Amino acid sequence: MGDFAPKPGALVLREGVGYAWQVPDLILLRHGRSEWNELNLFTGWQDVDLTPEGEDEARAAGKLLGAVDDLDLRVVHTSVLTRAIRTADIALYTAKRSWLPVQRSWRLNERHYGDLTGKNKKETAEQFGAEQVKLWRRSYDVPPPPLPEGDERSSALDPRYRDVPHEFIPATECLKDVVARVTPYFSEVIVEDLRKESVRGGGVIVVAHGNSIRALRMVLQQIAEDEIAGLEIPTGIPYRVRLDEELNVLEADYLGDPAAAAAAAEAVARQAG
Amino acid sequence: MGDFAPKPGALVLREGVGYAWQVPDLILLRHGRSEWNELNLFTGWQDVDLTPEGEDEARAAGKLLGAVDDLDLRVVHTSVLTRAIRTADIALYTAKRSWLPVQRSWRLNERHYGDLTGKNKKETAEQFGAEQVKLWRRSYDVPPPPLPEGDERSSALDPRYRDVPHEFIPATECLKDVVARVTPYFSEVIVEDLRKESVRGGGVIVVAHGNSIRALRMVLQQIAEDEIAGLEIPTGIPYRVRLDEELNVLEADYLGDPAAAAAAAEAVARQAG
Repeated sequence: MGDFAPKPGALVLREGVGYAWQVPDLILLRHGRSEWNELNLFTGWQDVDLTPEGEDEARAAGKLLGAVDDLDLRVVHTSVLTRAIRTADIALYTAKRSWLPVQRSWRLNERHYGDLTGKNKKETAEQFGAEQVKLWRRSYDVPPPPLPEGDERSSALDPRYRDVPHEFIPATECLKDVVARVTPYFSEVIVEDLRKESVRGGGVIVVAHGNSIRALRMVLQQIAEDEIAGLEIPTGIPYRVRLDEELNVLEADYLGDPAAAAAAAEAVARQAG
Repeated sequence: MGDFAPKPGALVLREGVGYAWQVPDLILLRHGRSEWNELNLFTGWQDVDLTPEGEDEARAAGKLLGAVDDLDLRVVHTSVLTRAIRTADIALYTAKRSWLPVQRSWRLNERHYGDLTGKNKKETAEQFGAEQVKLWRRSYDVPPPPLPEGDERSSALDPRYRDVPHEFIPATECLKDVVARVTPYFSEVIVEDLRKESVRGGGVIVVAHGNSIRALRMVLQQIAEDEIAGLEIPTGIPYRVRLDEELNVLEADYLGDPAAAAAAAEAVARQAG
């Protein structure tokens, strides 16, 4: 392999074909800070908005996306929650890619926090004990108590879920549940995009939430159940995953300054407390 | 027909079925004022942004959409030009409907103004004569001179049209050309939405441009060729079209204050000069 050897994943030499198009990159972006982050409340499926600071984070993400020469975004996926959609809108507008085709799915939503939804994180720790709350927040398979039947925080009557079968609308979720709903979306919808001829050589961006991105990374990077909950996902910093033809991860890293990404992950961890 | 008779188009009594779901409404919205409106330049396919005033118009449109009790938007269609996409984003965010599924198409773009693109409207009239410019602007089938081969204003290399066959990228267009490209999108894509079970009883919103909306209204309302160019489309005011089961127009009007819609149409006409 001489000077002209392609970087792994950049081009693939195929017998009888020559150099094939690059496998698309997958970009994962967690929405910017939201109003309930600010108030230290469990959010989950509640549709709270970005703060002005969260909008700034989305703009900064767009600048990072626009500054990468060899990244050519072709399609975007978002959850159906406003904070992810607005992060995508603002970031893509900043990157001059407002026109990208977009798909939205409830399967990319944040974890449903059950009866903790809307409650203050600190007060919850005082009520149930720090250990119990840590278990709900950081275990893989222990969900918080479910929303009571008919609770006003339920998403069952929210029109955005009109076409979702009722039994799929959660009353609570652990991370394992999130993995179970994100995985089909990844393997059927996102992978279909990654395989599309029109996306070859480009990029697919997913704008979602801490736990739906954890779920995607668990699937992509074979992260173990006892490690995934400890993986901090910084807000507003695009994470670029380079894939080979079999969709194995060749390399993955945050765009921009690594120190900034580390600091942002630390800030998220501190806030999670 | 007593007190319980449905409004035309609200419900349809079908033999053996009872009252069937309402046929979806179609809402047409022209983007807010753009930077080149402000500079009095021919815009067409150039991707100029909204002005702050245009953003305000989009917010006002969102308030009108959100204030109508019997309107339940289910899907949105936009052109691939930023000023229409941002108008849709801002209006739907204001109406708390950011999560609507969205489809974008170049077929909903503004008319391509050919070699007039980027030129000042007043100066063009001085150069070519007011009558000639009026003909280009207001005739049904006289296109302006095409962009010269290889002109930097051409959209041929713009990545948003990557998947559009090269022969469909215009070098100039008359309104008749716009009707020819909008009609298949209406009859294949928008009509498919209007017929979808999941959209029954709801609304389909199209956020586009003066001439693509003229084209849609021509098709929907059977407006004559010699009348359509004189139809002024105000910016930022949603136009609601109620349809029967055969997609005939039952009634159609601007949302909100009729005097405001009339004044906005007049402002557009004045600006067109």
